Amino acid sequence: MVTGRNESHSRRIRLGMVGGGNDAFIGGVHRIASRIDDQFELVAGALSSTPEKSRASGEALGLPRIYDDFKQLAIREARRKDGIEAVSIVTPNHMHFPAAREFLKRGIHVICDKPLTSTLLDARKMVKAVEASDALFVLTHNYTGYPMVRQARQMVAAGDIGTVRVVQVEYPQDWLTVEQDFKQAEWRTDPARSGAGGSTGDIGTHAYNLACFISGLEAEELAADLAAFVPGRQVDDNAHVMLRFKGGAKGMLWSSQVAPGNENALRVRIYGDKGGLEWAQEDPNYLWFTPFGEPKRLITRGGAGAGDEAARMSRIPPGHPEGYLEGFANIYSEAAAAILARRTGADPDPSVTYPTVYDGIAGVRFVAACVESSQKNAAWRKL
Amino acid sequence: MVTGRNESHSRRIRLGMVGGGNDAFIGGVHRIASRIDDQFELVAGALSSTPEKSRASGEALGLPRIYDDFKQLAIREARRKDGIEAVSIVTPNHMHFPAAREFLKRGIHVICDKPLTSTLLDARKMVKAVEASDALFVLTHNYTGYPMVRQARQMVAAGDIGTVRVVQVEYPQDWLTVEQDFKQAEWRTDPARSGAGGSTGDIGTHAYNLACFISGLEAEELAADLAAFVPGRQVDDNAHVMLRFKGGAKGMLWSSQVAPGNENALRVRIYGDKGGLEWAQEDPNYLWFTPFGEPKRLITRGGAGAGDEAARMSRIPPGHPEGYLEGFANIYSEAAAAILARRTGADPDPSVTYPTVYDGIAGVRFVAACVESSQKNAAWRKL
Amino acid sequence: MVTGRNESHSRRIRLGMVGGGNDAFIGGVHRIASRIDDQFELVAGALSSTPEKSRASGEALGLPRIYDDFKQLAIREARRKDGIEAVSIVTPNHMHFPAAREFLKRGIHVICDKPLTSTLLDARKMVKAVEASDALFVLTHNYTGYPMVRQARQMVAAGDIGTVRVVQVEYPQDWLTVEQDFKQAEWRTDPARSGAGGSTGDIGTHAYNLACFISGLEAEELAADLAAFVPGRQVDDNAHVMLRFKGGAKGMLWSSQVAPGNENALRVRIYGDKGGLEWAQEDPNYLWFTPFGEPKRLITRGGAGAGDEAARMSRIPPGHPEGYLEGFANIYSEAAAAILARRTGADPDPSVTYPTVYDGIAGVRFVAACVESSQKNAAWRKL
Amino acid sequence: MVTGRNESHSRRIRLGMVGGGNDAFIGGVHRIASRIDDQFELVAGALSSTPEKSRASGEALGLPRIYDDFKQLAIREARRKDGIEAVSIVTPNHMHFPAAREFLKRGIHVICDKPLTSTLLDARKMVKAVEASDALFVLTHNYTGYPMVRQARQMVAAGDIGTVRVVQVEYPQDWLTVEQDFKQAEWRTDPARSGAGGSTGDIGTHAYNLACFISGLEAEELAADLAAFVPGRQVDDNAHVMLRFKGGAKGMLWSSQVAPGNENALRVRIYGDKGGLEWAQEDPNYLWFTPFGEPKRLITRGGAGAGDEAARMSRIPPGHPEGYLEGFANIYSEAAAAILARRTGADPDPSVTYPTVYDGIAGVRFVAACVESSQKNAAWRKL
Repeated sequence: MVTGRNESHSRRIRLGMVGGGNDAFIGGVHRIASRIDDQFELVAGALSSTPEKSRASGEALGLPRIYDDFKQLAIREARRKDGIEAVSIVTPNHMHFPAAREFLKRGIHVICDKPLTSTLLDARKMVKAVEASDALFVLTHNYTGYPMVRQARQMVAAGDIGTVRVVQVEYPQDWLTVEQDFKQAEWRTDPARSGAGGSTGDIGTHAYNLACFISGLEAEELAADLAAFVPGRQVDDNAHVMLRFKGGAKGMLWSSQVAPGNENALRVRIYGDKGGLEWAQEDPNYLWFTPFGEPKRLITRGGAGAGDEAARMSRIPPGHPEGYLEGFANIYSEAAAAILARRTGADPDPSVTYPTVYDGIAGVRFVAACVESSQKNAAWRKL
Repeated sequence: MVTGRNESHSRRIRLGMVGGGNDAFIGGVHRIASRIDDQFELVAGALSSTPEKSRASGEALGLPRIYDDFKQLAIREARRKDGIEAVSIVTPNHMHFPAAREFLKRGIHVICDKPLTSTLLDARKMVKAVEASDALFVLTHNYTGYPMVRQARQMVAAGDIGTVRVVQVEYPQDWLTVEQDFKQAEWRTDPARSGAGGSTGDIGTHAYNLACFISGLEAEELAADLAAFVPGRQVDDNAHVMLRFKGGAKGMLWSSQVAPGNENALRVRIYGDKGGLEWAQEDPNYLWFTPFGEPKRLITRGGAGAGDEAARMSRIPPGHPEGYLEGFANIYSEAAAAILARRTGADPDPSVTYPTVYDGIAGVRFVAACVESSQKNAAWRKL
Repeated sequence: MVTGRNESHSRRIRLGMVGGGNDAFIGGVHRIASRIDDQFELVAGALSSTPEKSRASGEALGLPRIYDDFKQLAIREARRKDGIEAVSIVTPNHMHFPAAREFLKRGIHVICDKPLTSTLLDARKMVKAVEASDALFVLTHNYTGYPMVRQARQMVAAGDIGTVRVVQVEYPQDWLTVEQDFKQAEWRTDPARSGAGGSTGDIGTHAYNLACFISGLEAEELAADLAAFVPGRQVDDNAHVMLRFKGGAKGMLWSSQVAPGNENALRVRIYGDKGGLEWAQEDPNYLWFTPFGEPKRLITRGGAGAGDEAARMSRIPPGHPEGYLEGFANIYSEAAAAILARRTGADPDPSVTYPTVYDGIAGVRFVAACVESSQKNAAWRKL
Repeated sequence: MVTGRNESHSRRIRLGMVGGGNDAFIGGVHRIASRIDDQFELVAGALSSTPEKSRASGEALGLPRIYDDFKQLAIREARRKDGIEAVSIVTPNHMHFPAAREFLKRGIHVICDKPLTSTLLDARKMVKAVEASDALFVLTHNYTGYPMVRQARQMVAAGDIGTVRVVQVEYPQDWLTVEQDFKQAEWRTDPARSGAGGSTGDIGTHAYNLACFISGLEAEELAADLAAFVPGRQVDDNAHVMLRFKGGAKGMLWSSQVAPGNENALRVRIYGDKGGLEWAQEDPNYLWFTPFGEPKRLITRGGAGAGDEAARMSRIPPGHPEGYLEGFANIYSEAAAAILARRTGADPDPSVTYPTVYDGIAGVRFVAACVESSQKNAAWRKL
């Protein structure tokens, strides 16, 4: 029973938040994730798009310091001795860059929701802003925080499945099967706020990121056939994508928000010349390992066969399921490890890993390439 | 507990066999399938490519009449009063047409393994030969014989999932992950005998056929990216295919013989605007039905929610699993129903359904389109 | 791809049948099972309880020789040169002994459905009749014919799970959840025809037999708490049983016919000091093997890790599911191997294994002990 | 997408902790659980059995106030204006009562790990101490906090499965398959600290509690056959128990810590005359509902078919798995709701539910009855 996440020993990191007001799903997720390992304390926020809503949401959460907007938050907190050390940005996609910029230039670390930005132009600016800043930038591709995802990545890197040949990744959901008018659906299907991609941006980026993260491969080009099945929808709600990776591996990616019966069914399968791996987000404590010519093996989080990378991402013994929030918390805890190292000028533990702005721009490029390819009748586009 | 297959009441149909000698997997499958519902009696054969082997195999099976080759079998049996009424052709693909022609022109019904032929030219000749003959032609796309496949088809046709939007079909195996030299592998990876397609011909045709059979849709065009991962392999061992169906539905098809951990993992998922269906060949007695906005339902063969089409294909109560051989036997029993109706000049029961020469040529076109598309960097090809 | 069942080389065994008329489920199962490996030919029968029904059922099947009752069948067939060599007895339980006796005393091999008899008195007579006869007696505890059951038994015997400590076996169904009036239910809930046990006799005997078969253990005593939940039911429809085995292992057995959602959910789990095994009848091509301190392994029929016992029971490659009928056919094929050896006076292959009259009387003792124990408030009863 | 847990609006509850030092698994679980919904702040502790260890553990966690032992903690905190309002007791079982008593008599709410106590005598004293106190007492039978457990309970209460007939509950683990010498194992196998029950006390109490919680039934008597399979072990490591409930339902309970391949495999199945329910702790976001005569339905946390009780226990949308820690956090949040109501003298929301001292003494009685019954050769014992 190896479990790895230690509870915090240090002074908690002072955290601010942009976005994540009352009725936003992902804001609450970030807040819980930041608390689980007790390394952050949320002390300030500009949680909504108007000062009034921002105040109401902040008071509901009992936030010590509430600001009208992200700019005010950045400016004033930067001046305080006990100001925030890091900020979580959980707005709709088109606001990621404008908000992040304000904090980066003031040396405040940024933890930003994905996708990085709603446009490739913004993404390039974001890269520059990060490169020009002393602050850290962490993108919450949270699925990379799952212990068995780390386990899979470690096994591929160790050669357990040999040379990778085929990567099958899919991310079907069903919540946009019919027209929806609630807030979650609304901005996600509006290209001005979400970006040109629909399912490709919202979930396809996760799938693409995860495929690359686990396989250790870099995608070279893609051919995509996007569809908007729901009448009047302006962005894709289903995407069929063929992938070619550097070195010759090939893959398929399917993202869909119109596949009834699928709640959040992200799944990755990777096949090499010596074996295969299979992981499904909805049952995240399991990893199938299928060495060629041997019985299939089910590796469980914390169980026999799970290595140190999975252990480092875990809190409780095998058979006690960890879920989405713990996986998300792992991103926060990796961020904390890096931030704490910065406090003292030390190097973080070399095993600390989190998604960066470069993963972010790769995701935005993926969306852009999907849209372009689809407009050209699924012609290949470089990534 | 509705079960449907009645045991035979009539004189058994006299059956011959071409191919299927000692070490052929599929010959034995056909023989068992022909026996399960007691409607055929195997009385003659030319089971192998040489007279000596043919004799040895025939004697091992205790066949009453053994011939040197298929032509001799066709000629002599056609002359006998008690000659065969039908023949099963289970040779490598390139021999399907030459063999079938001999029987069709003599009015002997043909039950032929898939794919129809190894070339599109032969496929066209086969269609003509069938159209010119009074005899029936049945192609053993055996997966259409599974009760829950029939159930799925019936549900789609009844509108239970609404208008079909997305079809995801896959057929991964792992047995060709490394170079193999045994007989099953040998002819399947030789383009001269198997055709230009590797995984596309051997298993992709099944996947393609099944996707169309269940969805009731006709494919319009495809874009394919084929690979031969094993060094020296002359045909594809992995195929990534995007599909567009008439009416606007889209699909993906993946066939692979280099996916370790996959034995025979044919799986179909179909999504409409009202619900979804999912079926997996390795667990064939189950069908997931996921009406949008309702709990997921697991329909079992013979259980509540299974309709008359599934019942007609079943022999035993729910919870008593039927498998591959029973599904295969259903093709033989559908063939028997049609043949018995021919004996008397009656029309067969209108619910009798089996794959025809037109399904066969569709499969050969699918392989040809895959190969052509892939040679053109995955350009779209009409089907 | 090791597959084992060879197709028959010899003259088929001439088979008769007692019981199994038109609307009997299990008669059809026996007939299909006898055909699958082509080693039997059904040539005579007395299929029902009246001469008229017997004739009608026999004609529907196209039986060459139809008799009024089992006695006539036994007497007349015994006189023929081409008379039956074996008989299948598939009547309600109380007729097993009277019917079997007639064939045993005439040297005709008996393949008898389970449970052996409806009373312990009859069971003892059956043992004597078998011991006094030259003929073979095979009891169709068909679940012992599944390849992965053989695999499990072989692994336990080989010490793969160490010394067995705990055996958990269960067999829930739901078809008697409410009062039923169709034929299958009717005789099974009538103590005069079925015996004093309800679920214990009909399915508990299978569970008990399988637990002993796989574990290689002999049960020593049991404590049982039976219930008849459906008002007016005269036999148990739910049984909770604690078991103690010779040598110190302990077990639980649950049989139920009132557990909604369970179709035929026989499941066995066996734990030793080195590992565990788990097998479920509804998904019979899989066997979980869980060596202590190692990842869980899923062994598939015909796949890596499956041994020669499983292979000997198989016909087709892994991933091509075999089911209930093939498992049942394995009992028939084991019987055929023994019968064919008798023809020539040879010893059968030592690996040939089938349930005997001693397994049968053990099952009847199990039912009697359950009923007695339950009447004494679940006091322990020796087996 | 109904999600229920609101984030805290109020001043956090000041929490102390007894036990849960550096290497204790369950202490960390309680701390995370208390943080997830942001309603508690851990401010004081006596985390270990010696002042030195207590100090070291407290400092590692950055606790504001660290005490030598629980008595000092109770006395001094009771005197402070900003003293703790509640305490978590996470010591070995035999210390639960001595510790809880000190807080109860000072009006400090107690959140206590299970089982309630190590002896029935202590359990009776605990009941009296709770009844004599104004403070609340919450027992962390954490599995009752899982959303789908609440869902199941609500469905049974609503009559969805009709009158309950059969309850099958099991809780197998494998970590004590061989002798262990690490701390977790050590005190749990020492009767002086753990109580007379081994697996019965450690996990059997959970299974028993859950069976009663979901079914709404009260157990009347049991018959138990305990075993200690590992040589030298002083407490049971495997328990086979038959249960009879008031009103006529019957059940089986199996707890084991020597079942290789089982990590924490708590599972409950409940069958009534109209349907069944099945829930497994390792896959906690799913609930099978099997109405008799209808297709099996898989209800997912937050998905269609899940009701308000499950929603109230959830934080995130369906398909985003919640796990053990969130289930545990639900107990803490129910406790918080009750404590916050006490602050103001209001009644808590009537839907607030948590395990009480009476559930606790029922568990201790269960263990005592198991041990006594087993000593009398599994004679029935009243509960």
